[in-house]
Amino acid sequence: MQIDIGNALAEVASPGISREALDRLDARVESCHDRIERGRHGDEYGYAALNLPETTDPTGIEETVAPLAGAEYVLVVGIGGSALGAETLAAALGDSRIVTLDNVDPAEISNVLSLLPLDETVLNVVSRSGTTAETLANFLIAREAFEQDGIDWTERTVITTGESGPLRDLADAHDLPALSVPAGVPGRFSALSPVGLAPLAIRGHEIAPVLDGARHVSDLSGSLFETPAYAYGTVAYALDVRGAAVNAMMPYAEALDPFAEWFSQLWAESLGKDGLGQLPARALGATDQHSQLQRYRAGPRNTLVTFVRPREREALAIPDTDAADLAYLGGTGMHELIDAEFEATEASLAAADRPSVRVELDSVDGEGIGELLYTMEAACVLAGELYGVETFTQPAVEWGKRATRGLVGEGNDESAAVAEKTRLIVE
Amino acid sequence: MQIDIGNALAEVASPGISREALDRLDARVESCHDRIERGRHGDEYGYAALNLPETTDPTGIEETVAPLAGAEYVLVVGIGGSALGAETLAAALGDSRIVTLDNVDPAEISNVLSLLPLDETVLNVVSRSGTTAETLANFLIAREAFEQDGIDWTERTVITTGESGPLRDLADAHDLPALSVPAGVPGRFSALSPVGLAPLAIRGHEIAPVLDGARHVSDLSGSLFETPAYAYGTVAYALDVRGAAVNAMMPYAEALDPFAEWFSQLWAESLGKDGLGQLPARALGATDQHSQLQRYRAGPRNTLVTFVRPREREALAIPDTDAADLAYLGGTGMHELIDAEFEATEASLAAADRPSVRVELDSVDGEGIGELLYTMEAACVLAGELYGVETFTQPAVEWGKRATRGLVGEGNDESAAVAEKTRLIVE
Repeated sequence: MQIDIGNALAEVASPGISREALDRLDARVESCHDRIERGRHGDEYGYAALNLPETTDPTGIEETVAPLAGAEYVLVVGIGGSALGAETLAAALGDSRIVTLDNVDPAEISNVLSLLPLDETVLNVVSRSGTTAETLANFLIAREAFEQDGIDWTERTVITTGESGPLRDLADAHDLPALSVPAGVPGRFSALSPVGLAPLAIRGHEIAPVLDGARHVSDLSGSLFETPAYAYGTVAYALDVRGAAVNAMMPYAEALDPFAEWFSQLWAESLGKDGLGQLPARALGATDQHSQLQRYRAGPRNTLVTFVRPREREALAIPDTDAADLAYLGGTGMHELIDAEFEATEASLAAADRPSVRVELDSVDGEGIGELLYTMEAACVLAGELYGVETFTQPAVEWGKRATRGLVGEGNDESAAVAEKTRLIVE
Repeated sequence: MQIDIGNALAEVASPGISREALDRLDARVESCHDRIERGRHGDEYGYAALNLPETTDPTGIEETVAPLAGAEYVLVVGIGGSALGAETLAAALGDSRIVTLDNVDPAEISNVLSLLPLDETVLNVVSRSGTTAETLANFLIAREAFEQDGIDWTERTVITTGESGPLRDLADAHDLPALSVPAGVPGRFSALSPVGLAPLAIRGHEIAPVLDGARHVSDLSGSLFETPAYAYGTVAYALDVRGAAVNAMMPYAEALDPFAEWFSQLWAESLGKDGLGQLPARALGATDQHSQLQRYRAGPRNTLVTFVRPREREALAIPDTDAADLAYLGGTGMHELIDAEFEATEASLAAADRPSVRVELDSVDGEGIGELLYTMEAACVLAGELYGVETFTQPAVEWGKRATRGLVGEGNDESAAVAEKTRLIVE
C-alpha cells in the first residue's frame, strides 16, 4: 500500500496544500491519532472497527458456514453497509456468483430470483437490528420463492445479525447457522467482520488473506508522513476546506468498481454532517476519461480526484493491425495501455493545476483489498477527527425512515408532511 | 413525462430559486430557445442531435442488421458515448444480453470473452473516427478470440462508424453490415441514432417505440413553464449558480441505473468547461438512502438531488410475517414500499430545506426511455446556452490522449511531462 500525495501539493495544484501546512497539520494528526488509539484500546463505538483485523475470527466464520460451504451461488440480502462490503470483496476476488438484493425494486427482485438456480443458492440475510424494512421484505419474498420451488429455505439460509431481534429469533427457532455483527461496529465499517466475510466463506474462499492484508496496515503511527491512511485522510480534509468539495474516487480496475461505491458510503455517511463533508463521486478508469475527465480538468476547481490502481495486472497482448493510425499500439499490451492511460490522465490534471492523489496496492486480491479497505476506514476516522464530527452516526436518515413507516402504515407527523409537498409541475 | 420543480423553489429550499427569478429566467429561456431552434433548423453541429427522432431511420437500421437480427448476445465494443447509450437502452428494455467492452482492463476483457458464447454473439464495434485506441484494441482482441474459437468474425460483426476511417475501410474490405454515425451528432448525444439503437435491433427489439417516445417530447416551446426539458435545464443551471455545484441523479429503478451514468457523461462533458458546470453524481434509489442520503441532507448545501421514477411498476406482494416490529409491512407490496421510500426521501430533503427535482416517466420501457433521454439532452443544450459554454466539444480530454499516445509510442511533449511527476510518497 503506497499513497503519493505529490499532485495535491500547492506547488502543483489549486486547490492544493503547501508542505508547510502539511507539517502544521501533522501536529493535529498526532493528537487525533491519540484519540483514535484510545478509542481502539477501549473498544469504543466505531473505533472498535479498527480492531477487526485482530478481533474477527476467520476460523469461527468458516466453521459456522461449513455445512453450506462451497455453494454455487450466494444471495446476500442486505442494504447499505450490510451489502457493500460483500460486493466489494467478491468483486476483488473475481467472484461474480455472490449476488446482492440491496434494493426494493420489484422488477429487479423478480429478475434476480428468476435467474438464480435457487437449489444451488445459499441465502445470507444481513441486518444488525433484524428490522431493516428493505432487507426483511426482500427476505420474505426470497423465502417464498424457495418454498415455491420446493426447496427448504431453512437448509440454505445463514443469518448475520445482532445479539437480539427478529432475525436472531428466527435463527434460534429454525436452528440456522448464525453469525454476529460485532458490537461497536457501524455497518459501513463492517466489511472486515462476518458481515463482509461470510459470503466469501460460503462460496469457499479463504478469508484469512483479507484479514492478513488489513493487519499489514493496521499498525498506525501518529504521523501522516508515516501512515498512508493518515496521509490520505489529511489531504482529503485539507483539500476540502481549501475548496475541493468533491472527492472523485476513480479506480483503474473493473474489479474495484464496487470499492468506489463502498468508499462513497463510508465517506458520505461518516463525514456528511453539520454542514461539512466531501461529496464522494464514483468514477471508473479508464472509461470515465470519456465521461467525467472533461469536467475534472476544466470545470470548477472543486474536485479532488483519487486514482487507485494495482501495480500488478495480468498481461494481455494487443494483436497487430495494419491500420496506420493505430500502428503506435503495435507490440503493446492492454495492461500497458491502461497504465499509460492512468499516468497520462493523472498528469493531464496536474498540467491543468488540478489536484489528485495516487493510491497503489500490490494487486487486486484478498490481501490487496484488505489493505485498501482498512486504509480507507482509518483515513475516514482520521478525517472525522479533523472535521470534528461524529463519524459513526447517521442521524439525518431517520426522518425519511419514519416517513416511510408512516406512509406504508397508519400515518404519522412525517408522512403528513409528505402529503403537503409544494408542487410546480411542467408537463 | 412530467417534471415537478416545486422542491427547488426558494420558498422550500436553500439554495433555491424564487418564482420571480424563474419568471425573469424565462425571458432568457426564450432567446436560448430561438438559438436552439435555429441550430436544429440548420442541422448545425450538436443541435442536429435534437432532430434525431425525425432523422433516424429505424427501418434502415433494422434492414442493415437483418442478417444477424435475433442474436442471443451482442457485444458492443465502444467507449463513452459509443457505449453508454446502448447500455442505457438495453437496461430500460430489461435486456441483460447486450454486453459492453468499454474499458481497457485486461482482467475484465478476458472475463467477458470467456463468459460469452462467441458463436451466438454478434460484435458491434462503434467509433466515429475509427481510431479510438481503447475501442480498436478491444476489437483486435475480441476478433482474435473469435478466430481462436474457429468462428468467422466477418460473419458476426456490425460496424458503426463515420463516413471514412479505418473501421469504414474494414467494413468495405470485408463487406460487413455498416451503419453511419450521423453527421453533427457528438457521441454523448447519439443514443437515439444507430449508435444506441443498433444493438437493440440486433437483439431483435423494436426500436420504433424509443424514437416515438422521443418524438412525444421533441416539440419544444420557448417557455420553461411549458417544456419539461427547459424546466429541468433552467432549474439545474439556476441552482448551480446559487451554490448547488453537485447534481445527484438518483433514479428509483434498477433499470435506470445506467441512465444515471449516461446522464453523468452528458452533463459533465457538455457543461464542465470554462470553470463552469455542475458535477453529476450517480446515485440509485432506494439503495443510496443507506449511503448518500445522510450527506445530501446534512452535508454542505451544495447538492441538487434529481429524483426519477416510473409511475407504473410491476406489483410484487410482500408476504406476511409474525415479527411485531415488521407488522406495518403487512399487506403492502414492494412497488408500494419503493414509492413510499421515494416520497419519504424527497420530503426528508424538503424538511431540511434541501433542493430536489422530481422527474416522472410513465414506465420504464422503450417509449419511456426515449422520452427521458431526449428530455435530458434538450435540458443539457438549454443549460449550455444559459451558461454560455460550447456544449458540444470536449477539448480538455485531448492532452491526456496525446500523453497516452506518447507513452505507448515514441514519446512526445506530453509524455515527457508525465515523467516529471512531483512525488510525496507515504508507505
